[in-house]
Amino acid sequence: MEFTRPRGTRDFLFEEMRERKQAESTLRTVFESYGYQEIQTPLFEELKLFTTKSGEEIVNQLYNFKDKSDRELTLRPEITAPVARLYLNELEKTSTKPIKLYYYGSCFRYERPQKGRFRQFWQFGCELIGAKTPQGEAEVIALCCDAIKSLGITTADVNLNHLGIIRGLFKHFDISVETQREIMVVIDKGDKDLLIESLSGDEPVINNEELNQILLKLIDLVGDKSIIPEVEELISPYEESKAALEEFKELISLLDAFKVENYTLNLGVARGLDYYTGIVFEIYVPELGAQKQICGGGSYSLVKLFGGQEVESTGFALGFDRLMNAIEELADKEELPSHLDVYVAPISNDVRLKAFEITQILRKNGFKADVDLNGKKFKKLMNYADKIKVEKMIIIGANDLKSDKVTIKNMINGEQELVGINNIVDYLKEE
Amino acid sequence: MEFTRPRGTRDFLFEEMRERKQAESTLRTVFESYGYQEIQTPLFEELKLFTTKSGEEIVNQLYNFKDKSDRELTLRPEITAPVARLYLNELEKTSTKPIKLYYYGSCFRYERPQKGRFRQFWQFGCELIGAKTPQGEAEVIALCCDAIKSLGITTADVNLNHLGIIRGLFKHFDISVETQREIMVVIDKGDKDLLIESLSGDEPVINNEELNQILLKLIDLVGDKSIIPEVEELISPYEESKAALEEFKELISLLDAFKVENYTLNLGVARGLDYYTGIVFEIYVPELGAQKQICGGGSYSLVKLFGGQEVESTGFALGFDRLMNAIEELADKEELPSHLDVYVAPISNDVRLKAFEITQILRKNGFKADVDLNGKKFKKLMNYADKIKVEKMIIIGANDLKSDKVTIKNMINGEQELVGINNIVDYLKEE
Repeated sequence: MEFTRPRGTRDFLFEEMRERKQAESTLRTVFESYGYQEIQTPLFEELKLFTTKSGEEIVNQLYNFKDKSDRELTLRPEITAPVARLYLNELEKTSTKPIKLYYYGSCFRYERPQKGRFRQFWQFGCELIGAKTPQGEAEVIALCCDAIKSLGITTADVNLNHLGIIRGLFKHFDISVETQREIMVVIDKGDKDLLIESLSGDEPVINNEELNQILLKLIDLVGDKSIIPEVEELISPYEESKAALEEFKELISLLDAFKVENYTLNLGVARGLDYYTGIVFEIYVPELGAQKQICGGGSYSLVKLFGGQEVESTGFALGFDRLMNAIEELADKEELPSHLDVYVAPISNDVRLKAFEITQILRKNGFKADVDLNGKKFKKLMNYADKIKVEKMIIIGANDLKSDKVTIKNMINGEQELVGINNIVDYLKEE
Repeated sequence: MEFTRPRGTRDFLFEEMRERKQAESTLRTVFESYGYQEIQTPLFEELKLFTTKSGEEIVNQLYNFKDKSDRELTLRPEITAPVARLYLNELEKTSTKPIKLYYYGSCFRYERPQKGRFRQFWQFGCELIGAKTPQGEAEVIALCCDAIKSLGITTADVNLNHLGIIRGLFKHFDISVETQREIMVVIDKGDKDLLIESLSGDEPVINNEELNQILLKLIDLVGDKSIIPEVEELISPYEESKAALEEFKELISLLDAFKVENYTLNLGVARGLDYYTGIVFEIYVPELGAQKQICGGGSYSLVKLFGGQEVESTGFALGFDRLMNAIEELADKEELPSHLDVYVAPISNDVRLKAFEITQILRKNGFKADVDLNGKKFKKLMNYADKIKVEKMIIIGANDLKSDKVTIKNMINGEQELVGINNIVDYLKEE
């Protein structure tokens, strides 16, 4: 019988696992420096949590199943909805606002696997709940930029928008919620030709030439702060959009205080889901091609959708696997050190008990140490030590042991020294 | 609509999460000091992986489901089988033996939730593949004991057995594999009355008075090294058990070299699964009552069962949630420090931009720093700083700012000092 890994999943072996843990630890340090604390939610949730958030169509992309008591469950496709559930279940009543929490964990989507897209993948993200916008939003964006920079990813392009501007236009032109949803999905795809077709084909989504022209101009507004006057001019006839633009401008001025320096204003960022209300942002690493988006986030009112009191919430999720791809492409990669500090090699079988004892002493003193367990010939042990690039080797020989000594060999320069057994730990610590 | 967590699962909030991560990190350090390297396998696997290992009955305890292409999958109930699959898929052909790997991750069982038993739970474990026994086994047991001790759990009772002894008896008396399986499951339950009933009721599992008497005596042999002569005497008529006893004795002498000092020989430890072949061990923390078992392990030939070449394998899994319960019961619990190093409080709204800037400088310099985002009154900020037990507070006032200064308050002794903005980082680092 053949056993294989399920399609779209991965095994992580030693080196890759260490690189992932290093990135994970770097991100934790940055998130915690901003006062965020980690939480963890279950790997599966009630199915309705995600259909309520994203609509019934999402079921096509889910690993959903019934448990043995016929409960409709699903592996989670993302962690924002579980966090909103956790907030309602555990934090809404008791916690001082704002609440800052972050998470790192697996998500699952039943999609066609391809480069940079897996059926089990990881998200690293955070939610800021109950902070006043736009200063809360500015801080979240600063955190996101610092997190990406901390990994050595230098070409990330941060694209900001305020959805209140376009929603104000929809309001002005009295566009139904369903039509809004339809058009936002098209805008979210970032394909202008598709948008033109949707707006001007035989059955246009919106039958309003004035709005269509504004939309087509709006999504082309991409650039630095200098595009703000153009946005102002474009929406000047539409009172319903002006408050959002003012908020957007305040956010931009706050980004200076938070030392966020490189970003793009991009009026075409849409995020495609109803519950985003204000600021939205997406971050791209151009070197990753079709899978260039490494982050999506914004302000949303998900808690209200789930039956809670309205509360200002801003959050984002980093696609951890794509971050790892970006590190691979971009970051100055240091070679990982050996997984061992010391390798202990008995020359002959009669000294192996002593070798075990010395190894145990090293381990208790905080060294990563290993010892031959298989009675291999000394030459093979030398080859192994070379292969794993360990810096220090302790050679245990019967003759040396008579005077309670061992040989410590520096595998980098080849030098070796006789050291008393009682001095091994001090000797290694001094080096 | 009400949204709740699925039955038998948990949310982990801030403090609990930090305690779990601290334990996780402590365990990683110990496992890596023994030369083990971490791997990760998918959260779900093909169903047949686990039915091959544990029999069809296990399906009753699984979260199994069909994916949208009708693949029979299941959330993993444990991680030994996935590791054996990973070894066959990725390591069998290419790696130098022995291979030392460890894992930490979620497992899932559909069982009635109760104290210390959850439907999503965590295992921390390792596998040593291709090391000669019994020195490999001795090292694995040493690692396991050190791991538990490193968490401050001091009452763990390590119970060792060698299944070759009882399997030798079964061979001598020509007991069928099915009957062996049946009786091992009963022995595994550790209930002597049940065993007596199985052996002597109307339909005894084994119809052999001589073997039954030996079994009943064997499982009562529990104690330190001094019980070895009793075991020797008991099995002296049965050649088939003697090689295993010699191996058991060699293991015991090796445990000295590996500095394992406290353990119990317990001839009643059975583990209940076919693929265990040699040494088996279970570790109990008596203070945990019915859920006292925190670890199970031993030597096994799972790889062969999965179609690979026979290879010596020893491993164990620690029940991470039970370890956390044991820490709660037993370890000297230090109060966790505040999640922040510094809290920045602007006295008035006109200095908030400066407060944001200073907070960003602190964060970039490695401090865990937070700042008021909601324009709260200063008294509220003081109360919050007290509540979260932060040690340092930076108070930003318009007057101090005129001379580029801020007030740094030590929240423990109440002392405060005026510090130049450019000296904040140095001042905090010196403290």
